[in-house]
Amino acid sequence: MNTEQLRSLALQPNASNSKGQLLDPQRLLDATDGKIDREALEALAGQSILNPRQFDRRTVVALAQLAALLETRNVEMEKPLDGKIAITAFFEASTRTRLSFESALLRLDGKVLSVPDGQVTGIAKGESLADIGEMFNTYGDIVIMRHPDTNSIEEIQKNLQRPLINAGNGSGHHPTQALIDWYALLKWRPELCRPDCPPERRIHLGIIGTPGSMRAVKSFLRLSLMFAGAVSKITLVSEMADPVGLDLTEPIEQSPIPIEVTNDVQKVLKELDVVYVNSIAFLGDSYRNLDGRYKLELASDLKPGAVVMHPLARNDELSEDLDDTDHNLYFAQAAGAVFVRQALLVSVLQRLNRISDL
Amino acid sequence: MNTEQLRSLALQPNASNSKGQLLDPQRLLDATDGKIDREALEALAGQSILNPRQFDRRTVVALAQLAALLETRNVEMEKPLDGKIAITAFFEASTRTRLSFESALLRLDGKVLSVPDGQVTGIAKGESLADIGEMFNTYGDIVIMRHPDTNSIEEIQKNLQRPLINAGNGSGHHPTQALIDWYALLKWRPELCRPDCPPERRIHLGIIGTPGSMRAVKSFLRLSLMFAGAVSKITLVSEMADPVGLDLTEPIEQSPIPIEVTNDVQKVLKELDVVYVNSIAFLGDSYRNLDGRYKLELASDLKPGAVVMHPLARNDELSEDLDDTDHNLYFAQAAGAVFVRQALLVSVLQRLNRISDL
Amino acid sequence: MNTEQLRSLALQPNASNSKGQLLDPQRLLDATDGKIDREALEALAGQSILNPRQFDRRTVVALAQLAALLETRNVEMEKPLDGKIAITAFFEASTRTRLSFESALLRLDGKVLSVPDGQVTGIAKGESLADIGEMFNTYGDIVIMRHPDTNSIEEIQKNLQRPLINAGNGSGHHPTQALIDWYALLKWRPELCRPDCPPERRIHLGIIGTPGSMRAVKSFLRLSLMFAGAVSKITLVSEMADPVGLDLTEPIEQSPIPIEVTNDVQKVLKELDVVYVNSIAFLGDSYRNLDGRYKLELASDLKPGAVVMHPLARNDELSEDLDDTDHNLYFAQAAGAVFVRQALLVSVLQRLNRISDL
Repeated sequence: MNTEQLRSLALQPNASNSKGQLLDPQRLLDATDGKIDREALEALAGQSILNPRQFDRRTVVALAQLAALLETRNVEMEKPLDGKIAITAFFEASTRTRLSFESALLRLDGKVLSVPDGQVTGIAKGESLADIGEMFNTYGDIVIMRHPDTNSIEEIQKNLQRPLINAGNGSGHHPTQALIDWYALLKWRPELCRPDCPPERRIHLGIIGTPGSMRAVKSFLRLSLMFAGAVSKITLVSEMADPVGLDLTEPIEQSPIPIEVTNDVQKVLKELDVVYVNSIAFLGDSYRNLDGRYKLELASDLKPGAVVMHPLARNDELSEDLDDTDHNLYFAQAAGAVFVRQALLVSVLQRLNRISDL
Repeated sequence: MNTEQLRSLALQPNASNSKGQLLDPQRLLDATDGKIDREALEALAGQSILNPRQFDRRTVVALAQLAALLETRNVEMEKPLDGKIAITAFFEASTRTRLSFESALLRLDGKVLSVPDGQVTGIAKGESLADIGEMFNTYGDIVIMRHPDTNSIEEIQKNLQRPLINAGNGSGHHPTQALIDWYALLKWRPELCRPDCPPERRIHLGIIGTPGSMRAVKSFLRLSLMFAGAVSKITLVSEMADPVGLDLTEPIEQSPIPIEVTNDVQKVLKELDVVYVNSIAFLGDSYRNLDGRYKLELASDLKPGAVVMHPLARNDELSEDLDDTDHNLYFAQAAGAVFVRQALLVSVLQRLNRISDL
Repeated sequence: MNTEQLRSLALQPNASNSKGQLLDPQRLLDATDGKIDREALEALAGQSILNPRQFDRRTVVALAQLAALLETRNVEMEKPLDGKIAITAFFEASTRTRLSFESALLRLDGKVLSVPDGQVTGIAKGESLADIGEMFNTYGDIVIMRHPDTNSIEEIQKNLQRPLINAGNGSGHHPTQALIDWYALLKWRPELCRPDCPPERRIHLGIIGTPGSMRAVKSFLRLSLMFAGAVSKITLVSEMADPVGLDLTEPIEQSPIPIEVTNDVQKVLKELDVVYVNSIAFLGDSYRNLDGRYKLELASDLKPGAVVMHPLARNDELSEDLDDTDHNLYFAQAAGAVFVRQALLVSVLQRLNRISDL
């Protein structure tokens, strides 16, 4: 890009990613002739968003399409979240996720009470999550929480009366990340949103990681199981004997999608249409990085046309030499995050009526 | 509550506490036939709020009633603090107090410059509070400060020309907490706001703690001394020989309210109408928890109809098994904090004229 | 000042400094008959502000005059930055600089995504600055970054497509501080903004410090070299053999301003019209304070009418006993910071048309 183009881009409200696949949200809207399932969105009013199992395919598609609408248009002037206050309570620091939610809120004229690092601030005086939930009742209209403990959701909900959005709870779930992942997939290949996706357009999905202990991967897998008409096969690449974990055993058994487990990434790589990789395994209180065998790079034997996904931040498992290629869907995936979170917030906070032409 | 009720509550702008006494702010307004002493509020214009001794009974009641008005109505649309910037400078971290002020500001369309933890950020380069006060002059319209040093108020005021709200200074004072405490008491028993409260409705107030070294307790006691027509007796429960400290010796001597000191909580407990407890003693640079003898719980010998107050956060001195009982006034107390701080900010920043029907 | 005056000041939107020189911004506007070089400001649209060398005298004067216009008027109601989001990404904490930018943004109705301390929050998971830049593309409209590494600018710009304002990069530059410094000088002596400043009004400028390793001093010196018609001589006071460093060797050689280096502050002090002092030398990863010989205080042999500048925060090198004297230009210098940053943000974000009478 030349300087003139860069400057013009820099002053657009909705800039996109800088490298890799550039996805056009309009294509996703066109896939259903611009119709968005408003009923599915309205059902989210006042709901807490805790676990991807509370969604169905219809809701995921509706949220992705609302996100696409928000991405194509400049709705700031309609101030859809005017007067609403969100508390971003990050007891486990994550600048990426926190800023993503806060950007979504500010863009729509919502307001933010920010707790960037609950571990180092005053909350550390030993206060219980139940008492913190009670405190939040009169401080804001919605709570967005990340916490290192899996049972933190249950604890804060003892007294919290406001809708709660789970932004990651220990080895539990990360439902908004999974929505973001599917938003990228649906923009990339809009036919996937149809229950009758043509067989030759269905995807063989590979997941490198251990869903049982990695919340982002677990939530992505859980949501993927809802797309039986779009996913022809799922292959889990993991060194663990049982990578799935208790949470997903039943949904996997009930899903018509065939699922295979292997620890040989080289054998399966060239068959995958989509490769989902993640760097971080949450094991108890510490993180563990994946080992070097699973590293993706330009030299990897990726299928032509295959795309790589990653919830970011990344470590060594995903080389920067893929950034400039069409395999790079992870930058487009990240670039969609703000719009998906906007779609969710507008639905939960009952402000759909503020979005004109919806 | 069923799901429908919870959802409806969650979308109300002014949710209340989840458990314990539910207080109706309208009753406090009715106690003076809806009339609020506007002159008393106007006298706060441009004033720093440093020490409860600068208030009188009349001002405390007026602020409580403005808080009640704000709690009963949805004044956000009037944007009373539009264009005003507050600096929340917490040199001692306190997420509860900081977010309470910030919520009060954002709800009324004020703006916030937040210093969540002055001890760990750049201010630590060794800058004096006097220089920090000078810096704040052009950054905001009002400064809300918490600091571990008692003399921090004096230091920052060397150059600061903006109104300063003391949100806790070492073992000094915490005047807004005391206002919040009395807001809860006045909502709970509105007759207490009258100079001629009937004798049988007056309260025997017990304070467990050491006002001399605990700023919240000290400020609450200081304010309580102004309510001679409402408080029949005050009993201090403390293991210290002189729990009161130099600050309050004179006001106590001048007050007509009889004051007793004991270290036997069991003996006095069943006579108290209101029991104020606090967990944290500020002794020099460290905190000290109260010992186990003073723990309040369901099994404690509380008088029927008595209420328990606590500025929160709590430790072991106040058991969660009281949460679901009518003794629990502490949740209602916390739920009033945002409205009291709104009332104060609107008065100090001279925006009373933005509140319609005042 | 009496209480009434203090209160009235406290409720003005644009309060000034409390001590030392009180500068009237109107005098700077009058110096060019109120005409501001709008073309120079428009050339900043969409530009990143990385290094003072990208400015020229004309642009510095235009920005200073826009700052003066903003300081004399109450433009908040025009909401010039309405709908714009800035990310303040401080990987090296600096409460002073961060709050100054954030105050500038909030006053003009812009919004802020704040990263108060990038070193202690989630970014620390090892994410590259290139990936962080990519993330910021969809989060905000402009990025304001401070970073301990000099090459951080280059790193984040690998993917960042939004304008970037350098708020200090290692031993590199701090261009907005230099603009603030010159804003104070031009308000103090408005003739300095003219290419034909009368010789007797030109200044002999002394800089105590090592521009090669101190970014604020380096940027101030770089900008000062553009004012050949206003600066009669520059004297660098430093204990280093070559205090200038590679960056500025060429601009100094090309400048018509005579430059002298000495390590004897006492000898030169009484000849200086302006003494610029700074406390902090950035040497690798650590800071080094200047030694005691360079301390300025009331007893120092300052020329009558001379002014002392300091970017603050200060340590022992600048005594508080100068605060109450007319030598104190540093408080006025700090008081102008918000307005200079406003002028820059309005220009870069293309909102000059929102400022009426410009």
